[in-house]
Amino acid sequence: MTGWVAIAGLGPGREDLVTPEASAALAEATDVIGYIPYVARVAPRDGLTLHPTDNRVELDRAAHALELAATGARVVIVSSGDPGVFAMASAVFEALEAHPKYAASDIRVLPGITAMLAAAAAAGAPLGHDFCAINLSDNLKPWALIEHRLRMAARGDFAMAFYNPRSKSRPEGFEKTLNILREECSPEHLIIFARAVSTPDQAINTVTLGEATPDMADMRTVVLVGNAATRRVGRYVYTPRSAT
Amino acid sequence: MTGWVAIAGLGPGREDLVTPEASAALAEATDVIGYIPYVARVAPRDGLTLHPTDNRVELDRAAHALELAATGARVVIVSSGDPGVFAMASAVFEALEAHPKYAASDIRVLPGITAMLAAAAAAGAPLGHDFCAINLSDNLKPWALIEHRLRMAARGDFAMAFYNPRSKSRPEGFEKTLNILREECSPEHLIIFARAVSTPDQAINTVTLGEATPDMADMRTVVLVGNAATRRVGRYVYTPRSAT
Repeated sequence: MTGWVAIAGLGPGREDLVTPEASAALAEATDVIGYIPYVARVAPRDGLTLHPTDNRVELDRAAHALELAATGARVVIVSSGDPGVFAMASAVFEALEAHPKYAASDIRVLPGITAMLAAAAAAGAPLGHDFCAINLSDNLKPWALIEHRLRMAARGDFAMAFYNPRSKSRPEGFEKTLNILREECSPEHLIIFARAVSTPDQAINTVTLGEATPDMADMRTVVLVGNAATRRVGRYVYTPRSAT
Repeated sequence: MTGWVAIAGLGPGREDLVTPEASAALAEATDVIGYIPYVARVAPRDGLTLHPTDNRVELDRAAHALELAATGARVVIVSSGDPGVFAMASAVFEALEAHPKYAASDIRVLPGITAMLAAAAAAGAPLGHDFCAINLSDNLKPWALIEHRLRMAARGDFAMAFYNPRSKSRPEGFEKTLNILREECSPEHLIIFARAVSTPDQAINTVTLGEATPDMADMRTVVLVGNAATRRVGRYVYTPRSAT
């Protein structure tokens, strides 16, 4: 019996945004590992062991998956969105590097619909031109680097997508982000606060940079910032394909 | 009878990367519009009219979809990847803006697995930290803007994904891109040339910036560039979650 690890993205929430590839891996799995709310999306069945774990134990979770696969288990690590975008895939490769005894592991990454693309689709096409994705959490990088990247992205007139804009433990980061954007961009730039996209709680709120306030974001929100040409047409927001 | 337009992303090529949402829209459609090779992925059936069109007629195609929907048709515009990333969604909103008589149209964007995420998954997790997506085609923007964005992205130490890196009509653009990266980044930076991802022709070629040559890319290639910390572990390439 040959074990494997698949790191699967379950998309932003709605079941019809889970790829058939991810569903097939779950159907073959003996073990499913992941953060509690993502494991809760997997239906229990005979022969399947669910291993829900708390947040911020990504490396332990990854090492556990590699250990199970080495004994023949077929393990799916579940992420929301896409596992390669601010999710579990990098943690698995960090664990692989830290534990050379698992070097022969069969590891596959199964892509998914990441939050920024679902949010953009719900709003229109605000990421229709060059854009950046930035994780605003400073748990794993210094704030100075986040600030530097925000300025580079703004000076390049990139559209932007922000993951993890705000949490209870660091409420001030997103306020600083808005202040940096105000130094670098016109107050007419459009900002989309996309909360709980594709779930029953979905809410899309589009304002100008001048109107934006820090409390418009929480940890269930992805924030999209337009470039200088991003505009409204009817109830949609889009970024034109052309730039000058 | 109420018509609608859905702009659907069919993913990078393999059928198990098409979302159930996109498949359901195709099952309800009366008309499918798109670039010839994408329409060819839709099975013919009674009651469905296929409208394959040539490349570079995006605005005509979008206006045609709005016109059909106004007469009650259920129209799916098919894109590869995600329709909001360098694909048809922005063109539809441009057409909506140009034709106010269609302002009441029911338009939905159905997200898909965009090429850079499928390529990243095939390679490991090279986009596991902050990254930029840049379209290297200068059909719709001046080369000077592309160069500026490349420099801003490199100075921000973003990982990068390049769409449309090279075509027969502009073979020199990607050579210029490599030269700019060599001015801004260490020659040890990893570059992944991901060709025809998820198809039988898939080929993943990882080299250093110092080793990269322009002919490693063609129009079926997505190019991923690591940040300063991107590394190999076994046959995988990943970017750690932490940065200093």
